[in-house]
Amino acid sequence: MADLLARVEDRMLAERLVATRSLTEDLAGPLSAEDQTVQSMPDVSPTKWHRAHTSWFFETFLLVPGLAGYRQFHPDYGYLFNSYYQAVGAQYPRQERGLVSRPGIQEITDYRVHVDRAMGSLLERRLDDPTASLVELGIQHEQQHQELLLMDIKHVLSRNPMLPAYDRIELSPPSVPGSTTWTSHPGGICLLGHEGQGFGFDNEFPRHRVYVEPFALADRPVTCGEWLAFLEDGGYRRPELWLSDGWATVRTEGWECPLYWSRADGAWREFTLGGPIPLNPAQPVCHLSYYEADAFARWAGNRLPTEAEWEVAAAGRPAGGNLLDRSVLHPSPVAVSAADASPFGDVWQWTSSAYSPYPGFEIPAGAVGEYNGKFMVNQYVLRGGSCVTPPDHIRTSYRNFFPASARWVFAGLRLARDA
Amino acid sequence: MADLLARVEDRMLAERLVATRSLTEDLAGPLSAEDQTVQSMPDVSPTKWHRAHTSWFFETFLLVPGLAGYRQFHPDYGYLFNSYYQAVGAQYPRQERGLVSRPGIQEITDYRVHVDRAMGSLLERRLDDPTASLVELGIQHEQQHQELLLMDIKHVLSRNPMLPAYDRIELSPPSVPGSTTWTSHPGGICLLGHEGQGFGFDNEFPRHRVYVEPFALADRPVTCGEWLAFLEDGGYRRPELWLSDGWATVRTEGWECPLYWSRADGAWREFTLGGPIPLNPAQPVCHLSYYEADAFARWAGNRLPTEAEWEVAAAGRPAGGNLLDRSVLHPSPVAVSAADASPFGDVWQWTSSAYSPYPGFEIPAGAVGEYNGKFMVNQYVLRGGSCVTPPDHIRTSYRNFFPASARWVFAGLRLARDA
Amino acid sequence: MADLLARVEDRMLAERLVATRSLTEDLAGPLSAEDQTVQSMPDVSPTKWHRAHTSWFFETFLLVPGLAGYRQFHPDYGYLFNSYYQAVGAQYPRQERGLVSRPGIQEITDYRVHVDRAMGSLLERRLDDPTASLVELGIQHEQQHQELLLMDIKHVLSRNPMLPAYDRIELSPPSVPGSTTWTSHPGGICLLGHEGQGFGFDNEFPRHRVYVEPFALADRPVTCGEWLAFLEDGGYRRPELWLSDGWATVRTEGWECPLYWSRADGAWREFTLGGPIPLNPAQPVCHLSYYEADAFARWAGNRLPTEAEWEVAAAGRPAGGNLLDRSVLHPSPVAVSAADASPFGDVWQWTSSAYSPYPGFEIPAGAVGEYNGKFMVNQYVLRGGSCVTPPDHIRTSYRNFFPASARWVFAGLRLARDA
Amino acid sequence: MADLLARVEDRMLAERLVATRSLTEDLAGPLSAEDQTVQSMPDVSPTKWHRAHTSWFFETFLLVPGLAGYRQFHPDYGYLFNSYYQAVGAQYPRQERGLVSRPGIQEITDYRVHVDRAMGSLLERRLDDPTASLVELGIQHEQQHQELLLMDIKHVLSRNPMLPAYDRIELSPPSVPGSTTWTSHPGGICLLGHEGQGFGFDNEFPRHRVYVEPFALADRPVTCGEWLAFLEDGGYRRPELWLSDGWATVRTEGWECPLYWSRADGAWREFTLGGPIPLNPAQPVCHLSYYEADAFARWAGNRLPTEAEWEVAAAGRPAGGNLLDRSVLHPSPVAVSAADASPFGDVWQWTSSAYSPYPGFEIPAGAVGEYNGKFMVNQYVLRGGSCVTPPDHIRTSYRNFFPASARWVFAGLRLARDA
Repeated sequence: MADLLARVEDRMLAERLVATRSLTEDLAGPLSAEDQTVQSMPDVSPTKWHRAHTSWFFETFLLVPGLAGYRQFHPDYGYLFNSYYQAVGAQYPRQERGLVSRPGIQEITDYRVHVDRAMGSLLERRLDDPTASLVELGIQHEQQHQELLLMDIKHVLSRNPMLPAYDRIELSPPSVPGSTTWTSHPGGICLLGHEGQGFGFDNEFPRHRVYVEPFALADRPVTCGEWLAFLEDGGYRRPELWLSDGWATVRTEGWECPLYWSRADGAWREFTLGGPIPLNPAQPVCHLSYYEADAFARWAGNRLPTEAEWEVAAAGRPAGGNLLDRSVLHPSPVAVSAADASPFGDVWQWTSSAYSPYPGFEIPAGAVGEYNGKFMVNQYVLRGGSCVTPPDHIRTSYRNFFPASARWVFAGLRLARDA
Repeated sequence: MADLLARVEDRMLAERLVATRSLTEDLAGPLSAEDQTVQSMPDVSPTKWHRAHTSWFFETFLLVPGLAGYRQFHPDYGYLFNSYYQAVGAQYPRQERGLVSRPGIQEITDYRVHVDRAMGSLLERRLDDPTASLVELGIQHEQQHQELLLMDIKHVLSRNPMLPAYDRIELSPPSVPGSTTWTSHPGGICLLGHEGQGFGFDNEFPRHRVYVEPFALADRPVTCGEWLAFLEDGGYRRPELWLSDGWATVRTEGWECPLYWSRADGAWREFTLGGPIPLNPAQPVCHLSYYEADAFARWAGNRLPTEAEWEVAAAGRPAGGNLLDRSVLHPSPVAVSAADASPFGDVWQWTSSAYSPYPGFEIPAGAVGEYNGKFMVNQYVLRGGSCVTPPDHIRTSYRNFFPASARWVFAGLRLARDA
Repeated sequence: MADLLARVEDRMLAERLVATRSLTEDLAGPLSAEDQTVQSMPDVSPTKWHRAHTSWFFETFLLVPGLAGYRQFHPDYGYLFNSYYQAVGAQYPRQERGLVSRPGIQEITDYRVHVDRAMGSLLERRLDDPTASLVELGIQHEQQHQELLLMDIKHVLSRNPMLPAYDRIELSPPSVPGSTTWTSHPGGICLLGHEGQGFGFDNEFPRHRVYVEPFALADRPVTCGEWLAFLEDGGYRRPELWLSDGWATVRTEGWECPLYWSRADGAWREFTLGGPIPLNPAQPVCHLSYYEADAFARWAGNRLPTEAEWEVAAAGRPAGGNLLDRSVLHPSPVAVSAADASPFGDVWQWTSSAYSPYPGFEIPAGAVGEYNGKFMVNQYVLRGGSCVTPPDHIRTSYRNFFPASARWVFAGLRLARDA
Repeated sequence: MADLLARVEDRMLAERLVATRSLTEDLAGPLSAEDQTVQSMPDVSPTKWHRAHTSWFFETFLLVPGLAGYRQFHPDYGYLFNSYYQAVGAQYPRQERGLVSRPGIQEITDYRVHVDRAMGSLLERRLDDPTASLVELGIQHEQQHQELLLMDIKHVLSRNPMLPAYDRIELSPPSVPGSTTWTSHPGGICLLGHEGQGFGFDNEFPRHRVYVEPFALADRPVTCGEWLAFLEDGGYRRPELWLSDGWATVRTEGWECPLYWSRADGAWREFTLGGPIPLNPAQPVCHLSYYEADAFARWAGNRLPTEAEWEVAAAGRPAGGNLLDRSVLHPSPVAVSAADASPFGDVWQWTSSAYSPYPGFEIPAGAVGEYNGKFMVNQYVLRGGSCVTPPDHIRTSYRNFFPASARWVFAGLRLARDA
């Protein structure tokens, strides 16, 4: 019986693997060979690199060590498609990924097929625990890259003066949201971190106690309309609203609005995966840096939530809302009444919490131990997922993280205040 | 009676002001006009700038608004010597402070005398509360700049190939410290932040509850001898020991040892305020970045403490140890038995805590509200003071902060671990 | 009769146009969509950009003004594919050409067909003189870009760690050249510049007198074997051999050998359009900066020729040698006896002459006046053409020019000395 | 008799040395220790560095090799004050000269006295020829640094927001110059270079023939008033007037007027060694880059002269005009009639000639061979001297040279045209 159950689990894992691998290819579908080659800034990777790197992950951590007789697809791919795993060898420099025209997309498609077939063989067997865990990690890893792929190609296309679309997207009609309502929480000693059922990244563990003061959290994210009010009130010109680093960045970079916003003939528009569209005031504002989110909160007389506050408030809520499965690929307008709105989807929400290890955090053994811990400095935590996050990838305890200046993430904010 | 007490307090404040102002001049005493003019990197300010800026603080926040008939010393000084207070006007660019040869040190001495005389007049009167608080803040501010002045001039002199000394310093004989001993703490709900008696910066408030897991803290800082063992074990060449940002910095900057260390003819030496000296293995290692402190802790199988852990462990301990009043100007060798060692002095201790506002933190009204809050991003907290920190400036709840890459601070580390 | 002659000339021009346009497509033939998209440094343009820009030239300067009813292929191409002609509008930034994935290579093929058809219509008519001159200029312009295309793709492929080949190339067997022989020239008042028959660029005019001292010129270029002797004699480590700017560049860039040379297991190899090959000592050394050419000449006790010396020595010699029509795509070994060697082909030869206007130089009227004059600063003249120069493009009076630090040109040197 | 003559010559040389050394100290006289320490950009050296480096020159090339028993003043000065002579050892990095506070100005005064005394001893003896030539070279070298000292301190003071004066200067009253008149020259075979009498730098030799086409040269430099007309005609906003590199520099650097010009309340003023003054339209325009000079000439329908043209036109004219001995320290207004004006003084005149070796140029033996030859790339020749050039330093064949972007030179232009 346990055996049967295990076999069912193995089968489900195999099916999820196939579905995940297939979704990556679907996401790359609208993109030409040329599109898949370009790297528009050092943080961005070419689409074909994402497709290859996620395959390299399975090859390196599962097939080479675990499948007898496995033949590596190409001797140079270990170097070309290793992102940052020092333990398994040197890496081709990240900022030069856009210089590599070969292998082309056809070779990379072949590489994916080669890896998929071998993974099929591997998964025909009963899986011991470390193997199953690594397959799960590989799936989760590929899901992260699905979101990155869409973030990155949006940036690539935005640098093209012709502003081409990735795909058709359905536009929501402009609407008028109600004003923000707030939900209060009593705080006290709370439990933070992954509860133990289902997959979690190392950085979500261990579940541990924190002391939280009473607070209130807005029921919905800040909208484009509210952002316009901030902007028109001189938000980008008033140093007293900004962290010192933030203000320096505003001036160095010449920021005057969120990334992808532009103004022509008195009207604001926004570049999306569907090309440029008129700004919809009811939509959650998106593509903000931490600095901008923080400055807005100060201007509004509020603050950003801590990640503990966010997680406490979201406890028990299932992942839902405008995630990648809806194929909207853009934040949806907030509802007139947001009281029951899902805390998930639309835009990642910046928290005021620096990305740090939880008390008792342990780095997993082996090369995958490089997955999260070594990035725990100079980054801030985001919560909740976005319109380009796969729905079975996000959860209450999920910790995303980016530097305070990053703007190409689908990131916005929800306000908090002391209660 | 209350009136008498208030007058005594005012008198004590006035005397502390005089003593503080006088100490700044004593610290600049060994430095020539040329020494006081140089800026060796953007983070460093010339000595004469520190002397002028601390005077500008009293002029701007106390004399101009509070002393009837006060005449500003020079119309351009408000621009030249404003550090970063946006609310009181524009600032001469920080990285260009070393380009300004005039005013020279004589004019700045005159400026200090002018301000001191006017402060004398102001302090002859009974002080209302905001005024007394601002005088206290001015004293504390000048004490911060006393430490900065010494950090900065050390860096300036270190860039001179002749490696000149700031002053004579007394060297301790080499000694052999005992191995590290540890003190355990049970954790639980603890109180963090300033208790309310005496001066505290805004960032130390409010006192608040935190939940702390059981932990142990080393009884003394890591020594140069221990650092050599790390170095000889390939510490600066092994990426697996480093945070990702840290490793990138090691490679970009070519770090192979702490700042101010160098090796010639097989022997290590260290540049100090007394010039180059042979490395003393018993001395606390100093001039580390956060990245280096973190890498060492990982190598040692331990970790950095959080600031809550540090403060809980130091609770109730008076400020003492090797601080500026001892005039050693360099860390002293650790004792053979460190069990009762002061948690203060010698070297600032990096904590793993990002510099963030305490729950309920409020920015003070007025221009001095820019003092701390706007720097609460991308920095890490250090605790405990150093051999160049004035003794009446440091306390258990004191939060110093610097970016993770800063090395010209007199900073080292104490190890922590889960209990 | 004159009419007949004119019609024959028009027909020949039309045929040369077709052949030139066709050759560009042949040169792009071995390259994938991905290859044609990459820009490996700001000086390099993607292959597809060259294909589009050369078409834009005909569209902008001939079809739009001269062909009634001509429809521009795409409204944005004028911006995207203008290189530097300020007079005809703004330009997409040069260093961002590699960010533009769309139009893809199919659209650019369509663009070329569209322009070629319209040029066909235009050329069915009798051509007035300015039109015929502009067609000739367009052909010459496209020929320049044929060489640039090959230079650029070589650089692109060289940045790929897999070192892929552009195409198969035929390797010459290693051989041993004779030592350098010299030909002397008496100098005196000489005539420099284009003689007036056939096409010439504006910068070759007017033909004018110069006074030349007696000199001698080597009969063949410096070889890889001679370069190895320089290198092994510490050539890249001895500042006394270098111009001051050159030495600074050597140290900043870490130059230790010519571009595309590398050493593994004690053997030198060279990256070519056919991939990596063993170094052939008899081949002319290639991919040198002016600084390197100058340092070698000093080391050899000689000097670089002036452009006047080169032209005087080459006077009356027809273009020949290893040019693009031989399809070798790499310098060929020098012959045992070089006394009658062609001064053309293999490698461009750096001269010591700064690129300046000839006395009486006039900028042509109209937008094409931007062709040459505005680059006459901070560049040095090269003469003679290379293995990737179209044979009907080079001539005795031809002046190529690049900055002293450029290395991706197929450039070497011939030695000169006072006689 | 010959012996007597030689002794008189030695005596005159000794007196010129004393006078030159003394003038350097006079020029530094108005400057404080702080002023003498600052380096405002990499091209600028601190005043005290100039004072030390010119002494180092005598110490290194004359005293150490030539004066028995000479004791070097300080073992580290050879490293600190070597500018670029690779043959005599390593150099402290140029861009860090402003970081060295010690030695201070008192030590450098002592150094000068030490060197002067030893030179006195050396010059008591009869001088052999190489020694006398080196003393002469040392004098000429120090004169070059006198001009550099004034150029550099002007830049240093200009970066101070208080715009302090170096010294009082006498202002000329505004006046109205006549329009430009021209003098024609027939050209032909001309002789260029030093005639052989008196001192000349290596780069002025050998005298040689050049062929010059007929030309005309303006009788006076371009004035500030004429520059205003260029500026008001959009001179800094019209790319068609500029060399491509020049236009790129205009945009990168944000140039809108010559260096040291500024506008407030509708009036132009200029920063001078006497502080800010109102712009005088009759003064020669000064502190131009080559790019600006070239753009103006194009706008005016003329061109810059070649250095051959300048020298041919100035042949036989004695050095005179507004040079350093007049102590004006600023260009003087041009006369109403300029027909007989001196070709020397006021402002260096940019020529269109790249700085290249004359045919037959030979690098002198020994370390002083590094004096000129190694800078013969990427620079343009200026002729005629300026208001801060010592009068016995300038001559008809004198070749000054700077990169095309340099603006802190006292440089303007005289127009030329084909005749």
